[in-house]
Amino acid sequence: MDIMKEVVNLCKNRGIIFQNSQIYGGLASTWDYGPLGVELKNNIKKVWWKFFIHNREDMVGLDSAILMHPRVWEASGHVKNFHDPLVDCKKCKERFRADHLIENILGISTAGMKNEELNQIIQNNQNIKCPTCGAKDFTTIRFFNLMFKTYQGPVEEAANIVYLRPETAQGIFINFKSVLNSSRKKIPFGVGQIGKAFRNEITPGNFIFRTREFEQMEIEYFVEPGTEMEHLEHWVDYSMKFFTKILGIKDENLRKREHSKDELAHYSNRTIDIEYKFPFGWGELEGIASRTDFDLSNHSQHSNEDLIYFDEKKNKKYIPYVVEPSFGVDRTLLTVLVDAYTVEKLQDGTERVVLKLAPYIAPIQVAVFPLKKNEPRIVEVAKKILKSLIGDFNVIYDDTASIGKLYRRQDEIGTPYCITVDFQSLEDNTVTVRNRDTMKQERVSINSLKEFFTKSFSINLDI
Amino acid sequence: MDIMKEVVNLCKNRGIIFQNSQIYGGLASTWDYGPLGVELKNNIKKVWWKFFIHNREDMVGLDSAILMHPRVWEASGHVKNFHDPLVDCKKCKERFRADHLIENILGISTAGMKNEELNQIIQNNQNIKCPTCGAKDFTTIRFFNLMFKTYQGPVEEAANIVYLRPETAQGIFINFKSVLNSSRKKIPFGVGQIGKAFRNEITPGNFIFRTREFEQMEIEYFVEPGTEMEHLEHWVDYSMKFFTKILGIKDENLRKREHSKDELAHYSNRTIDIEYKFPFGWGELEGIASRTDFDLSNHSQHSNEDLIYFDEKKNKKYIPYVVEPSFGVDRTLLTVLVDAYTVEKLQDGTERVVLKLAPYIAPIQVAVFPLKKNEPRIVEVAKKILKSLIGDFNVIYDDTASIGKLYRRQDEIGTPYCITVDFQSLEDNTVTVRNRDTMKQERVSINSLKEFFTKSFSINLDI
Repeated sequence: MDIMKEVVNLCKNRGIIFQNSQIYGGLASTWDYGPLGVELKNNIKKVWWKFFIHNREDMVGLDSAILMHPRVWEASGHVKNFHDPLVDCKKCKERFRADHLIENILGISTAGMKNEELNQIIQNNQNIKCPTCGAKDFTTIRFFNLMFKTYQGPVEEAANIVYLRPETAQGIFINFKSVLNSSRKKIPFGVGQIGKAFRNEITPGNFIFRTREFEQMEIEYFVEPGTEMEHLEHWVDYSMKFFTKILGIKDENLRKREHSKDELAHYSNRTIDIEYKFPFGWGELEGIASRTDFDLSNHSQHSNEDLIYFDEKKNKKYIPYVVEPSFGVDRTLLTVLVDAYTVEKLQDGTERVVLKLAPYIAPIQVAVFPLKKNEPRIVEVAKKILKSLIGDFNVIYDDTASIGKLYRRQDEIGTPYCITVDFQSLEDNTVTVRNRDTMKQERVSINSLKEFFTKSFSINLDI
Repeated sequence: MDIMKEVVNLCKNRGIIFQNSQIYGGLASTWDYGPLGVELKNNIKKVWWKFFIHNREDMVGLDSAILMHPRVWEASGHVKNFHDPLVDCKKCKERFRADHLIENILGISTAGMKNEELNQIIQNNQNIKCPTCGAKDFTTIRFFNLMFKTYQGPVEEAANIVYLRPETAQGIFINFKSVLNSSRKKIPFGVGQIGKAFRNEITPGNFIFRTREFEQMEIEYFVEPGTEMEHLEHWVDYSMKFFTKILGIKDENLRKREHSKDELAHYSNRTIDIEYKFPFGWGELEGIASRTDFDLSNHSQHSNEDLIYFDEKKNKKYIPYVVEPSFGVDRTLLTVLVDAYTVEKLQDGTERVVLKLAPYIAPIQVAVFPLKKNEPRIVEVAKKILKSLIGDFNVIYDDTASIGKLYRRQDEIGTPYCITVDFQSLEDNTVTVRNRDTMKQERVSINSLKEFFTKSFSINLDI
């Protein structure tokens, strides 16, 4: 079974994810979230916010703008260093990332390799040919900055350049002092935010795994220098809990991977990735990086703003060190879909597709069906139930097929519970509630439905 | 009392809204939402989603990308028509919007005026001088497109141009067919989405009222041609309910304003704005436009995609007409702040500042205080209460001042309820719950706090 293909098809057919600008032939590697996709995405962001911000006394949120002062990206090093090494095939003019070319063709890692090394391998190794036309005629490597650039104001001139942020992180660093002063937090404390970021990747791909426009959930956690390693380990553990206990992702599909010395970014003294076993291979789901005081020091120097923290308890001053847990929203959503996608053989020999999502992230939480859509008394009760639940849960009403078919339709999109209103409901004020995973039905009193679902959809944060 | 100034100061000091890139001197008219601001903004978006999407069987959501195929903006008319008329002062080189220049200096409306008319007025009217240097030496009007432009892929050439969307609306139109097919909705139905949009405005201003980067909440509601006026009126009413009953904005500060013929956009056959009486004057909070089949027809022509709807009930085919209720998130947030900002004279002669926000949108819902922060038994109970509520509400713990001062601090940011744990709590398992608006305190059993707040924060959608 080609799971990626099945998931992509499910996404398209059921309104989870559409190709962007499809009627115009599509914009490469850009995706839109459909009616069910936006609910799933919102739910993932909500539980993330709840677990990482609300659930912790040492965390606050932030929502900084996508466009920032261009000097932010000078201080952060992005103007100078945030680029990919590119080569052109002189024959067919196709353009490639030099490191990916080597990795894909030779199957070796290029982590830590310098420009010259990459160049030498590409020029000298006879196996490295243009994947498009087969020629062996590459330019030398040039660097291409990954930041999208635009101009603010009516004139396109250098003074008006602004960049689309390539990460949400810097929005937190430049607000460090404002957050500190207004929130009265003491170190250690952190700031989390969710928002769009943009990278002009040459080779995006694997559906929503790597896209030019994407959404991040990032935390910058400020600590006393020297304590960063214990905090880093805490965040790795806490993140693993998020994936396994909150999102319900299978343990065996997750692994931690420590960056080797060669691979470490220049600002980091330790980085651990949490990876997921995607159908196309292990891929980064979250990076937890110890960034030292690299960012705050650089911003302090470039802005002449004093970003030193005074630690009252210890009576000492320092520029805080930072531990950064950085998640991708789109990747998390892809993980959740792939991990939940199940094809079950039933006793009668047929198959059912079921998305075994954690109940509180399912796009639709409860579906209400009338056993007979032309029986006004049944419809009336069903609509009344719909109305009574709609303020608290995401509930839909469907009467466009037989009950059996309606169940399958909801299984496929992960709806945890289906309510069927039948003739017995008119007599004893109960309905059947059918469980997605067990497929068992139980009769529940209409008056206690709200309580039943409140319990079913509550999240246990105390783990 | 200069309310705008007071609100702006409150926002800065309490972590609601910060100037973006402040440590670099700020990026003009760009703002970041701080720890309390992001909660308020998220809550506004949540209740909007609940009221406009979940609460209606005829609505679904969407989350389309910011970057789209450039042909989208050719079809929509934005490449050709989405521009402002600009003039330069030849002496000081300052640049102005021609229409604003006339409106501000002469106090007349320029709605519907053609280019030549504006030019004539500026050249001939002796009162129109450069607001910066006083000279009367303007260039003729040139048009400046308001879309931010960037390049996708490694080469800056025309084929790679992409725009930052100037509105979320078009993302809905291009997905019309995909949504229709996957959701099985029948006309009339609508699609809502929340997301960032960007306009390279020459004269942004009034705090977060007009910014270059902003967030929209937009609905495209698809109807049978000929029925659009009744739907438009429905959406005006439903929107007014949102502002008054859901967000609790004062009736007397809202008005409806119908666009005159001269003022109507070329695609609209009727538009009604809902305006709020800001301290700087009446300003648009929401526009409800009947857009006819302008968008779907244009996309159909430009993409060669058949966007005709087959109405089974009436057995007829048509390109749907569209009614568009379009809200600004940032403007709604500003409205909510300004409208809720209250300074009360107390009996003892002192004043208190209180944000009278609707309880469910308040950034912090419940604050828990220990009467004595050094009494471990009290602290233990208070922390236990915090933990028991944190999964369901946004709750904080504070012990950094006297109870009276803590109450004032929470009043200022609109926290509806404060819990104080005192010595009596240790004896009878009750706490005081203090109401923000009445300032009255009542004793509530700790065991029933969850029920108490669930009731207090529930939203009545059935209005």
